[in-house]
Amino acid sequence: MQTEEEFKDFILNGHLHYIPNVSIDCAIFGYHEQTLKLMLIRHRNMSSWSLPGGHIKRSETLVEAASRNVRMHTGLDNLFLQQFKTFGDPNRIQFNKFDKEKWFEITGLTSWEGNWLMDHTISVGFYAVTDFSETVLQTDISIAECAWFDIGSLPPLEFDHSEMVKEALHTMRLHLYHYPIGLNMLPEKFTLSEIHALYETLLGKKLDVSNFPKKLIALGLLNKLTEKRSIGAHRSPHLYSFDREKYTLALKEGLVLS
Amino acid sequence: MQTEEEFKDFILNGHLHYIPNVSIDCAIFGYHEQTLKLMLIRHRNMSSWSLPGGHIKRSETLVEAASRNVRMHTGLDNLFLQQFKTFGDPNRIQFNKFDKEKWFEITGLTSWEGNWLMDHTISVGFYAVTDFSETVLQTDISIAECAWFDIGSLPPLEFDHSEMVKEALHTMRLHLYHYPIGLNMLPEKFTLSEIHALYETLLGKKLDVSNFPKKLIALGLLNKLTEKRSIGAHRSPHLYSFDREKYTLALKEGLVLS
Repeated sequence: MQTEEEFKDFILNGHLHYIPNVSIDCAIFGYHEQTLKLMLIRHRNMSSWSLPGGHIKRSETLVEAASRNVRMHTGLDNLFLQQFKTFGDPNRIQFNKFDKEKWFEITGLTSWEGNWLMDHTISVGFYAVTDFSETVLQTDISIAECAWFDIGSLPPLEFDHSEMVKEALHTMRLHLYHYPIGLNMLPEKFTLSEIHALYETLLGKKLDVSNFPKKLIALGLLNKLTEKRSIGAHRSPHLYSFDREKYTLALKEGLVLS
Repeated sequence: MQTEEEFKDFILNGHLHYIPNVSIDCAIFGYHEQTLKLMLIRHRNMSSWSLPGGHIKRSETLVEAASRNVRMHTGLDNLFLQQFKTFGDPNRIQFNKFDKEKWFEITGLTSWEGNWLMDHTISVGFYAVTDFSETVLQTDISIAECAWFDIGSLPPLEFDHSEMVKEALHTMRLHLYHYPIGLNMLPEKFTLSEIHALYETLLGKKLDVSNFPKKLIALGLLNKLTEKRSIGAHRSPHLYSFDREKYTLALKEGLVLS
């Protein structure tokens, strides 16, 4: 949505194009050099931050809706994108948090009675992981701000979004034991130290040295290259890359990595 | 729903009490003596089998709706009940599969135009695990049959329910590495062979001898009892029981079991 006219049409007639009573929310995690961040947005009619999200077009799958949302905010495609949980507690959304009177000006409405956006909404949570240094954050007409926050110092979030972040982190960390998810967060060629640091940062804890990398090698997911990196006198660790074919298969079927 | 009158009111006015456009479906797995089964139902106006499911009351959480559904069909409470995935592909439900004309007689409707049940519906999948020998299967006014099927020989299922079963199995098997889920499927006191057999049956594959049990003992989730079971001359393996406190905590926080 780029224009006021589109925004108005969405509020008034969105249920013709989108499924009512259902939304998606996306926890986009960003990794770079041993730092983990989370992308947050601030809606133009709200004072606090929240996860980016939106509605599902009647013609698209849930993951297509999530991909569209992530692409819209980060400019990136083909991220590792997974459902983590669906949220549906009664009263999970307090509509009084929206400064809805501002919308009256845009829409010409004088009451929200019967408006499709104001009914009970359950939300399907997706998480994505990417290298935050490669993203170009973007807003649209409904969003005032969009920014990366350190995972350890998030601002207060709207609705049940703090719970969503907790659950997204929990599921992402569990998935680390079953899916290879480094492809978007490491350079094409990397050292075992680099992938070890990635796992430690995502898990938020120290690991036995090269626990994960060793298992990835044993499963054939990492290829040892002849090339080395020179990082100082007498220190030139081997470089590795992901085996794309096995990586894709493991993403589909899952594995046991611990 | 037990009466025709309640069923009619559900079809005509259900959207007042239930959230439209959203349902839940439950894959209820049943274990007993190294056999894994799945519970299926046949709706009274359909010819094929499907997972049990239903709608979410406006006053309840998603997991409350799933619990209510599982309890209604099995008579059991407090099962290990987890979301596995939410399904929302366009056209995932072919409404022509319902013999809807039969409903015309009940409802007095002559057209489905605008009926809340006929719109795009996404469904939140839950799975549960239990001992099938302890369940008493129950139907209601909307269901013709309810039965356990061996996991290896399921009948063709309606809609996207075969995909749901596949995903439920996948997630349940992944969760086996992170949550203790034997409590409802083993007797109060059991041998290591019994819990080993449970894991092998649920995972659908052979495991290294006592891999999972050893880890459960190391994590303090199993208590070794002084009591033994006599199973023949010179064979009397120790009995074990779950440590309820640690079990409950592990269910909440997750762990690494492999």
